[in-house]
Amino acid sequence: MGVGPADVAGDAFQDLMPFNHCWGCGADNPAGLRLKSRWSPDDPEVALAAFRPRAEHMAGPRHVLNGGIIATILDCHGVCTSVADAYRREGRAIGRGDTIWFATGSLDVRYLAPVPVDAAVELRARVIEHGERKTVVDCTLVAAADVCAPSIRGACSPSVAAGSE
Amino acid sequence: MGVGPADVAGDAFQDLMPFNHCWGCGADNPAGLRLKSRWSPDDPEVALAAFRPRAEHMAGPRHVLNGGIIATILDCHGVCTSVADAYRREGRAIGRGDTIWFATGSLDVRYLAPVPVDAAVELRARVIEHGERKTVVDCTLVAAADVCAPSIRGACSPSVAAGSE
Repeated sequence: MGVGPADVAGDAFQDLMPFNHCWGCGADNPAGLRLKSRWSPDDPEVALAAFRPRAEHMAGPRHVLNGGIIATILDCHGVCTSVADAYRREGRAIGRGDTIWFATGSLDVRYLAPVPVDAAVELRARVIEHGERKTVVDCTLVAAADVCAPSIRGACSPSVAAGSE
Repeated sequence: MGVGPADVAGDAFQDLMPFNHCWGCGADNPAGLRLKSRWSPDDPEVALAAFRPRAEHMAGPRHVLNGGIIATILDCHGVCTSVADAYRREGRAIGRGDTIWFATGSLDVRYLAPVPVDAAVELRARVIEHGERKTVVDCTLVAAADVCAPSIRGACSPSVAAGSE
């Protein structure tokens, strides 16, 4: 357990991505969640992120993590894994050369079990399909007790315009 | 256009639901988005909500609404429409008698077009399937220019425990 910054090597994807003002993960958005994703040191095909919710991120009941926050961090971790994967396939460091960006085309979340709001959660993502116009990422949220919580497939279309601002 | 509080009759679902601390829509969560949903005055099967994003709710590019925020308000509007529908089917006002609550089982969002962050969005939900253990809600987000943006089907399972806190 414990996928924190000390456990995974290298700078976070988000810290290397230019023009990322995203509420969920943008290094350039001080009011956002500021999710950080990195390649796993144990499996180069897997990207990891840890997220510690704030108390206000509760669902209807106070002790459960909000489903919208869960969807947000799954989406951000999936998109940023797509971006990091695309740079890697081109043999470039993230943020070097022409900007690569993806926009989510669809987001399917299965909520399998309640996630406690008072502990860090782990996210694990893997690109399972990549093409000219679509990349598909499997992303899973694991709660503190090793119970798999939601999982997701996010289909991301490469986006050119997003990096231009 | 303009589905605001003045355009739809009655108190918001969320203001009548007890124990709702939800980050997306809870009246009891001052730090959250505080989404408000109401039955349409024109179609009793449709629930409406208006949401005005804050600037910080941007996606990677500054002018686009974040996909996680979109998922959050679609989810909240869908769940609260399920709750309101369930009370109505039992002939009770929302919040009267035993508490009815739903937890989202799955959330499928299709992002059809970018949504501007600097204008209010409209949400329209309709229960399309209801059973003992599952309710399905179609929910659509409409952006300022009348362009349909994402749509969703959220399958919500009735939850007993959520109302007990």
